[in-house]
Amino acid sequence: MKSARRNLLLRRALYRILDPQRSGRTPEAFRLAHHGMVVLGVGALVLATVPNISADYRAALDAVFYVALAFFAAEYLCRLYVVPEAPWSHQGRRWRDRLHWSMTLQGLVGLCSTWVVGIAAAFSPDAASVRLACVTWLFKFVPYSEGLSLLGRVIADARSTLVSVLLAFIIVLLSAGTLAYLVERDVQPETFGSVPTALWWAVVTLTTTGYGDAVPVTLAGRLLGGCVMICGIALFALWAGILANGFAEELKRRDLQRTWDLVTKVPLFNAVGAETISEVTRLLRPRDVPEGAVVVRRGEPGDCMYFVVSGEIEIRIPPKPVRLGAGAFFGEIALITGEPRTATVVASRSSVMLVLHVTDFRHLAARRPELMAAIAEESSRRVAHNNAADDPSG
Amino acid sequence: MKSARRNLLLRRALYRILDPQRSGRTPEAFRLAHHGMVVLGVGALVLATVPNISADYRAALDAVFYVALAFFAAEYLCRLYVVPEAPWSHQGRRWRDRLHWSMTLQGLVGLCSTWVVGIAAAFSPDAASVRLACVTWLFKFVPYSEGLSLLGRVIADARSTLVSVLLAFIIVLLSAGTLAYLVERDVQPETFGSVPTALWWAVVTLTTTGYGDAVPVTLAGRLLGGCVMICGIALFALWAGILANGFAEELKRRDLQRTWDLVTKVPLFNAVGAETISEVTRLLRPRDVPEGAVVVRRGEPGDCMYFVVSGEIEIRIPPKPVRLGAGAFFGEIALITGEPRTATVVASRSSVMLVLHVTDFRHLAARRPELMAAIAEESSRRVAHNNAADDPSG
Amino acid sequence: MKSARRNLLLRRALYRILDPQRSGRTPEAFRLAHHGMVVLGVGALVLATVPNISADYRAALDAVFYVALAFFAAEYLCRLYVVPEAPWSHQGRRWRDRLHWSMTLQGLVGLCSTWVVGIAAAFSPDAASVRLACVTWLFKFVPYSEGLSLLGRVIADARSTLVSVLLAFIIVLLSAGTLAYLVERDVQPETFGSVPTALWWAVVTLTTTGYGDAVPVTLAGRLLGGCVMICGIALFALWAGILANGFAEELKRRDLQRTWDLVTKVPLFNAVGAETISEVTRLLRPRDVPEGAVVVRRGEPGDCMYFVVSGEIEIRIPPKPVRLGAGAFFGEIALITGEPRTATVVASRSSVMLVLHVTDFRHLAARRPELMAAIAEESSRRVAHNNAADDPSG
Amino acid sequence: MKSARRNLLLRRALYRILDPQRSGRTPEAFRLAHHGMVVLGVGALVLATVPNISADYRAALDAVFYVALAFFAAEYLCRLYVVPEAPWSHQGRRWRDRLHWSMTLQGLVGLCSTWVVGIAAAFSPDAASVRLACVTWLFKFVPYSEGLSLLGRVIADARSTLVSVLLAFIIVLLSAGTLAYLVERDVQPETFGSVPTALWWAVVTLTTTGYGDAVPVTLAGRLLGGCVMICGIALFALWAGILANGFAEELKRRDLQRTWDLVTKVPLFNAVGAETISEVTRLLRPRDVPEGAVVVRRGEPGDCMYFVVSGEIEIRIPPKPVRLGAGAFFGEIALITGEPRTATVVASRSSVMLVLHVTDFRHLAARRPELMAAIAEESSRRVAHNNAADDPSG
Repeated sequence: MKSARRNLLLRRALYRILDPQRSGRTPEAFRLAHHGMVVLGVGALVLATVPNISADYRAALDAVFYVALAFFAAEYLCRLYVVPEAPWSHQGRRWRDRLHWSMTLQGLVGLCSTWVVGIAAAFSPDAASVRLACVTWLFKFVPYSEGLSLLGRVIADARSTLVSVLLAFIIVLLSAGTLAYLVERDVQPETFGSVPTALWWAVVTLTTTGYGDAVPVTLAGRLLGGCVMICGIALFALWAGILANGFAEELKRRDLQRTWDLVTKVPLFNAVGAETISEVTRLLRPRDVPEGAVVVRRGEPGDCMYFVVSGEIEIRIPPKPVRLGAGAFFGEIALITGEPRTATVVASRSSVMLVLHVTDFRHLAARRPELMAAIAEESSRRVAHNNAADDPSG
Repeated sequence: MKSARRNLLLRRALYRILDPQRSGRTPEAFRLAHHGMVVLGVGALVLATVPNISADYRAALDAVFYVALAFFAAEYLCRLYVVPEAPWSHQGRRWRDRLHWSMTLQGLVGLCSTWVVGIAAAFSPDAASVRLACVTWLFKFVPYSEGLSLLGRVIADARSTLVSVLLAFIIVLLSAGTLAYLVERDVQPETFGSVPTALWWAVVTLTTTGYGDAVPVTLAGRLLGGCVMICGIALFALWAGILANGFAEELKRRDLQRTWDLVTKVPLFNAVGAETISEVTRLLRPRDVPEGAVVVRRGEPGDCMYFVVSGEIEIRIPPKPVRLGAGAFFGEIALITGEPRTATVVASRSSVMLVLHVTDFRHLAARRPELMAAIAEESSRRVAHNNAADDPSG
Repeated sequence: MKSARRNLLLRRALYRILDPQRSGRTPEAFRLAHHGMVVLGVGALVLATVPNISADYRAALDAVFYVALAFFAAEYLCRLYVVPEAPWSHQGRRWRDRLHWSMTLQGLVGLCSTWVVGIAAAFSPDAASVRLACVTWLFKFVPYSEGLSLLGRVIADARSTLVSVLLAFIIVLLSAGTLAYLVERDVQPETFGSVPTALWWAVVTLTTTGYGDAVPVTLAGRLLGGCVMICGIALFALWAGILANGFAEELKRRDLQRTWDLVTKVPLFNAVGAETISEVTRLLRPRDVPEGAVVVRRGEPGDCMYFVVSGEIEIRIPPKPVRLGAGAFFGEIALITGEPRTATVVASRSSVMLVLHVTDFRHLAARRPELMAAIAEESSRRVAHNNAADDPSG
Repeated sequence: MKSARRNLLLRRALYRILDPQRSGRTPEAFRLAHHGMVVLGVGALVLATVPNISADYRAALDAVFYVALAFFAAEYLCRLYVVPEAPWSHQGRRWRDRLHWSMTLQGLVGLCSTWVVGIAAAFSPDAASVRLACVTWLFKFVPYSEGLSLLGRVIADARSTLVSVLLAFIIVLLSAGTLAYLVERDVQPETFGSVPTALWWAVVTLTTTGYGDAVPVTLAGRLLGGCVMICGIALFALWAGILANGFAEELKRRDLQRTWDLVTKVPLFNAVGAETISEVTRLLRPRDVPEGAVVVRRGEPGDCMYFVVSGEIEIRIPPKPVRLGAGAFFGEIALITGEPRTATVVASRSSVMLVLHVTDFRHLAARRPELMAAIAEESSRRVAHNNAADDPSG
């Protein structure tokens, strides 16, 4: 029983360390080591293929590579051990869950890029080539990057449309290749001697890459080339547009979700109704401010006000700076009066803020007067308080 | 009379098989055969142009090609036979409808790429070149791909604007070609010796393809080249923007139409007014889930709720999974509590769902409280029911 | 007095013929001749630079060119004569207006590309080169193309932003050129021997044209090259985005304006309030239908309804087709029932229609029930009328 | 005390001259000199690297360069002197503020590109190369260009997403480079002999630059090349989309802010509520009109009305032109009647206007009838007044 409990504690600790979103010193240290290992390991792999470098530093590069390999092999075992990663897993289902995880894409890549490569490299005559499979370590960044996860989701969502565009691409490609073969084969039998070689020209032209290794020289071929370029730009506009639109939409969605979570932490917005919050959320934008960063600089024109969600900021007004913590807001005076900023504001701790731009402030003031009244009241209360605190020193 | 009836039944059966949107085993089998024939036939055509392969496998490639040709020739006759494809056609107009169809683009391409090519290849001295016209078989994919049909409609709608941009393209092209001819003809009489050859440089540069077979070397020519590149990017931005915007709009329109049709199948939305449905439709997104796919995984953060339109899903909660059919919804608890998913959900049959993202859920909760009340009520009813069912086994 | 009146009539007639937007037989015939002259004239110019063709067909090409030159010279005089083009010009200001017009861009280009070129070609030793200035005849298409005029307005509106991006482009270009010169000059003194030659590489790379005539070979040069390409794509994304967004906005604006004008011609919309019209205008899309075109095909799924603004359509229902003129609408039944189209509709005259897509129809039905009630009433009235007309023949 | 006051006055005067946004004769003259110096100085630098030119004009180029260097060195001292640039700085903090400014990016670049370069060039054996660092003078344009400042903010805001895309770019790049090395190294050991050299091919292909110095020749390599091109277009679509969207959003935000400031200067809008102003602001677009420019031309179709924010315009109606100053509006009659413009309007002084397009005018008329009533009333009042003024002279 005791060992089971020890196991559970160990698994929980490991789970926390391996969780990509977890903050704290140990997880962050692990992430640093992990990312460093990926960079060093892949760097060693790449440099080992350069003859000069490989000749001079073979031992060092091999050492770096094998350290990284050992690190990731151990990481694979740890991840397998803590699966299912959520700590509320039932005892009895653990092995089944582990088997299931090891069959997922992440599990398979993890296994292949560590144990399989290690063993294969040991027995293969051309170990260097086998080891190049470890360039897949780069994909270990994916779970740590929100943008890449979003990208994956966008591609999955727009799958059917992307396939349609790809189909159009293939139709144009084959048609162009066949036509180019017909018009150019007699003049350039080397580069247009069969449809597959003509296809290489077509793909290079359709993507407007244009290496120049295959170029039409007949009039018909050049007219065809011009059409292919124009079609290519049209097709890739669709391709690019679908991905860019989908990505922009997902980004907006994610930002909205994050903003909403932050908005509910500002007491000022708790009093107003859900519909106002829904509207405010669309106007605010979150900003992470590191410790010591200058948020607002005295004398600059003011075009935003700020709500402090977490952390602490310091308004540098004489005689003594004022500190505001989570839930406070500042910068509204410049928006109302149109004057430059009267004080510099610095983040005294790493903070998260919500930014309201002056155009949105005005829009909100027109649509939600009750919210603006609350801001104005709190603002004048603070000015009065500051003046009172100021008096003895003034 | 009996033969007329047999004819009608045969035509209806054929019509169903040939209909690109029809689901069912026979139509799907036909589609598979059809698509396979296109791929094999075009593949054989392309490979037959490679001297090595052609020498070794001529007979096999010819066989594949002629099988595909026969298949499509038969398909053409079938399509002609079932025209007008809708089964409510009047007897007397059938031959006129057939003639009419055979004059449409689809009919003409179908005829030319089968019977005409077959006959021409039989009598032509260069049969291989004639047969290359069968690369048009690729266009047989168009009616089966919704994206390609949309694309056609987008181009038709934006016709006049696209022509304007093309006109601007031609104006810039001819101006650039003429100028390049003037400044480069003395230095490079080979590549810039006449306006038409200079136009080839201009088109390659304007599309930023840049083969490198014609490159300006004088200062004036290079300045001109830089301007042409910048103009080219501007022109193709318009070209690309028009197509990408139009395509995005049509896609959105089509998705909205599909979503609306699905929304009306969910009983929950029947009670609310048309305006709420119109708003809900803009927020929901359809998703097709194959049998056995995991929709929600226990322990993951929850950012969506799901409405089952058709099919069946299984919520894997102990002691016994719960199955929900069309009209049900799930996943709303994680949105309300903000906790991770408490159970894995798997599609036990191929299903269609409507997905509501958490930001839209909150937006809807603020704007349409009555809808959210209905969801909450149904949700708590289900929890109570599950607990009751759970009790004896717990 | 009489000659003044004759003059006025002549000027009005000429004005109508020369007006780019005017419809009618004479203006359209003039446009055809004008466009044909541009194409022929520029074609002759371009072909005259090809040595082979020039040698064989010099006389014919010269003849075509001089006919076009005479045509445009006469057109220039006519345009000068009818200026100010609006017929309500005051007598006394006519010569001042003419002088003013001849100083506008259109006037100057018109003068230079006809009389100036003609005279210069007569006296110049290299007449062929002088005549190439007539490639500017292509710009004569601009007033006839709405898209090109829009494009000009978009560029004028976004001027200051485009200049900013161009400035960023120049900063990156010069920095990249200087750096490339520093790192590559020793290895490739030919192509990177001075900053100006390195700038040619930079511009070719920044626009991702990549001719390949100048390619960095050192490690530092290649790293720089990679950065330049990535910067180039970023810069041209801004460049392209500004133009594409501005163009899309202007197009939407123009379409809205046109749609509003059309909407007010449909009696159905006259009864509803201005706010409903404003909303309907955003949902309808105009479509020009040539005579004889099939608008709706029996048996197809119906996803639009149509309002006839001008012209006439024919609904092909037995026993006798029904004709509908301006102000009528059709196609609404398929939207309500979801059934395929029950009849083919053909434009019996060249018509303009407003199209309402099914998703917008539903949206409108939810938001403006009174409009939908009016449509349903008119629709059932027509069905009743058709049935009554049908009865005797049924 | 007197010298302190003289100092303060001097600093204020200098501050005004150096302020990039300040208007007035002296600041504008300084800006002209400043921009001219940048252009001349950088031009001299660039030309000095061309052997021919350098040999012939060395002294002149050196003179221009050193004059510019002296100018910017003096400018640096002035900027340091007036720091903090806002005149309300406290006496005691001045030196601290100067030190702080000299540590900012602007301060460091200013120091390095003047004094440091000057001293280094004096002592270095290769003065020409050292002086090339002065190409950074180009960055002196940044504070003067609003667009470039916006661009900086957009990049800062989208930082994390851009890094994600860059990460995806690196993953694809390294994977493609490694694969290309594997499949091409035996055939082309020169260009694909190690992963780093293969990476050069990958980056040139992924950005679709396509120099043609490294081209795959094996079938596998060409298939890989095609995939890399398609991936490249997808990745750069995201890269471009993020920047273009962010830039468009910031531009819109800035325009809205400017428009709002202008709207509040038009008396007509003072009477209406804040919500109407908020809506009007979204429809109006500011336009700067130089003195003497024609705003509206008689006889042209009218698609806009104009509000004069500052400056003065002249309506050229006989017998005597009418002048309208700030707060007036014109051009509404053509929008209401649909007739062409009845008079030409010229800016008699450099003016700022707000433009309301006809579609937005109609939209506003439907949504805000009270505003349109005010416009109509004022309009008819003016017509009556004009007629009265007209009477004696008519």
